[in-house]
Amino acid sequence: MAKSSLPVGAAVFAQSGGPTTAINASVLGGLLEAKRKPKVFNRLLGAKNGILGVLQEELFDFAKEDAKSIQALKLCPSSALGSCRYKVKTEADYARILEVFQAHNIRYFFYAGGNDSMDTADKVNRLAKEQDYEMLVMGIPKTIDNDLAFTDHCPGFGSVAKYNATMVMEAARDTEALYTADTATVQEVMGRNAGWIAASCGLARREEEDGPHLILIPEIPVNLNKLADRVRDCLKRVGRCVIAASEGTIDESGNYLAEQGGDFGQDSFGHAQLGGVAEFLGNFIEREVGVKSRRNKPGTLQRNGTHWASKTDIDEAYKCGQMAVKHALQGTSGFMVTLVRKGNKPYKCDTGLAQLSEVANGESKLPLQYMNDHGTHISDEFRTYCTPLIKGEVEVPMGKDGLPVYPRLRRKLIPRKCGEWKR
Amino acid sequence: MAKSSLPVGAAVFAQSGGPTTAINASVLGGLLEAKRKPKVFNRLLGAKNGILGVLQEELFDFAKEDAKSIQALKLCPSSALGSCRYKVKTEADYARILEVFQAHNIRYFFYAGGNDSMDTADKVNRLAKEQDYEMLVMGIPKTIDNDLAFTDHCPGFGSVAKYNATMVMEAARDTEALYTADTATVQEVMGRNAGWIAASCGLARREEEDGPHLILIPEIPVNLNKLADRVRDCLKRVGRCVIAASEGTIDESGNYLAEQGGDFGQDSFGHAQLGGVAEFLGNFIEREVGVKSRRNKPGTLQRNGTHWASKTDIDEAYKCGQMAVKHALQGTSGFMVTLVRKGNKPYKCDTGLAQLSEVANGESKLPLQYMNDHGTHISDEFRTYCTPLIKGEVEVPMGKDGLPVYPRLRRKLIPRKCGEWKR
Repeated sequence: MAKSSLPVGAAVFAQSGGPTTAINASVLGGLLEAKRKPKVFNRLLGAKNGILGVLQEELFDFAKEDAKSIQALKLCPSSALGSCRYKVKTEADYARILEVFQAHNIRYFFYAGGNDSMDTADKVNRLAKEQDYEMLVMGIPKTIDNDLAFTDHCPGFGSVAKYNATMVMEAARDTEALYTADTATVQEVMGRNAGWIAASCGLARREEEDGPHLILIPEIPVNLNKLADRVRDCLKRVGRCVIAASEGTIDESGNYLAEQGGDFGQDSFGHAQLGGVAEFLGNFIEREVGVKSRRNKPGTLQRNGTHWASKTDIDEAYKCGQMAVKHALQGTSGFMVTLVRKGNKPYKCDTGLAQLSEVANGESKLPLQYMNDHGTHISDEFRTYCTPLIKGEVEVPMGKDGLPVYPRLRRKLIPRKCGEWKR
Repeated sequence: MAKSSLPVGAAVFAQSGGPTTAINASVLGGLLEAKRKPKVFNRLLGAKNGILGVLQEELFDFAKEDAKSIQALKLCPSSALGSCRYKVKTEADYARILEVFQAHNIRYFFYAGGNDSMDTADKVNRLAKEQDYEMLVMGIPKTIDNDLAFTDHCPGFGSVAKYNATMVMEAARDTEALYTADTATVQEVMGRNAGWIAASCGLARREEEDGPHLILIPEIPVNLNKLADRVRDCLKRVGRCVIAASEGTIDESGNYLAEQGGDFGQDSFGHAQLGGVAEFLGNFIEREVGVKSRRNKPGTLQRNGTHWASKTDIDEAYKCGQMAVKHALQGTSGFMVTLVRKGNKPYKCDTGLAQLSEVANGESKLPLQYMNDHGTHISDEFRTYCTPLIKGEVEVPMGKDGLPVYPRLRRKLIPRKCGEWKR
């Protein structure tokens, strides 16, 4: 499609899935780029809560937002536009999306999210083509899980990695200082299907004294007897054992440790243990190895730690948003922006493109060469991969009350033009 | 005691109890002050793992430490000298302490810790006097729990407050963004007996939209029916409910929620719930209110968050250490340094003194006027009290790998002079 044939109309930005520290920077990158071309983008809209905002025709106009709040999106936790976990499936839903787009002359759709969101964006793109509705759809990668295919890494991952690695480094010093008897500490981190985040904790270990001493990831099922041996061995060598464990860690039967009953998953009253992998492992170690344990589960804190974001991550997220708009201005549609690493010394990262349909069906697990031979800690290769992504600190705006100041968009909805949507 | 009559000898610094973000700054403050008077303090020693290091005669010489590592104690998580939870009780233990002190001509003992540590320091001081062994003992306040009496606040508290308030602010945005259906999030914070830390989370709420929306503290027993109503009311008003809960929150019968069985504390299989107050409340809300919940439990992360420490807290911790030495140089013994607030506009804080014996037996709970009339959130009075303590950020030294660099002392033990200690 030649540049001259670009449709003139509104652009919609939307965010989907689990929030990250960097997804607002992506929207800002796109917004500021789009603002430079008012003859193409005659209105810049946000969808409240991702695709749900489109389905429900809950759209707001960025022109009505305070300019300062928009600028502050660069460093703002979570998804300022609102997010959702709604999976678009029915034809009626897709028809509704197009109905809303047409009603508001929306010609550009920029969707920041993971696999499912790219699938949605892809289908919207196809449907528009089928129905001869001229519009351009671009995906912006987002996920702390770092599990999108066709991109070297995902915006959001570098920050959650920096956060968790720093936290486990600091808490490991607690375990080191306090306990004169052997003890274990488990930090439960996110990652249902992929071990990228747990692996990133490994960066905190510069020498044997440092935690974490063991890393558990979903890609390597845990043999609990071996695990107990490894904890014992670590206690003997270091006097303590700090473990970083993915929430999605499974046993050799493929069952999540977090949902385990059975022999190891019972407390002294024979009750099944609930409460996540940290609780399971903590109880398991106390019972099987016979040492005290502590359990840390940062939960949603880890993916919103803007105060300790990776500058590299924020900058790259911004660039992904910016490039999505630039590519649309070149007439590109049906693609997601990717990050393409050009070198490590010095680190250099450009952007590329991947077809939405391909991203939607792909998944990037942690390659086994990123772990050591025993599968118990990271390899040097992973260190080389991950270190550049967590570099650089940000300076969040601070209030007079000693706490960060994060913007909140007004999100005043524009008047509706369509009928009510029925789920 | 006149200044001229000061004994000449070694000084021992020791750290006790749960680590904090600020306790190493206290030691540094004391060390640098003591270093200026080599004619009084002819040797500066550290005890490895608090009073246990004295009992086991595990002492190290700060002169053998790298000067850079010592300077870096200002911003270093946890207790770099090592800590312990050993409670000195027997006369034999006290006799042993004095034996070790005499063997190494230790004439000054600076002990950073909470109530129990002040009790130990007090008894050591008395015993030395009884036995005509000339030595000076000073306490340095330390506890994230902020529950020491006779001091306006405790070094360590400001940093854990800043950490938790920031985290709950950020995670509350996650709850706000992601869930288009009603939902709740519980952040479990430390505080077995006092609600200071949970209350400090309340600072994150500048307006009604902001979390936390409810605060649970040990001082106000929870009526679970009322709590369910309050969660429902909050969901109706705000669409979500973020709760900050002390780990030591109790029900009206005085039982810890974290240890609850009974009607509310069972899962669908009738199993007792374990895993802390966040797990309990999350399950309770899901069952009783019927909305999804998330549970965040930063655990030991919260008391070691040096990367996000309060500058005010670090500076005051440093000053407390410094003043302990200065007072000893004035001949003062048997006292703990206290923080004395002189004003809030602008905030000004001096130091004072409290008798070790009095501190040992005191406990400072959260005064009820620091909560609102319903006991569900903080009052403006608490805001005035707490805000100055979390102000200011620090800049931790960063490595080339994008992570903080924290020192680790060598702690090479000096030759023993006493026999082995038997517990």
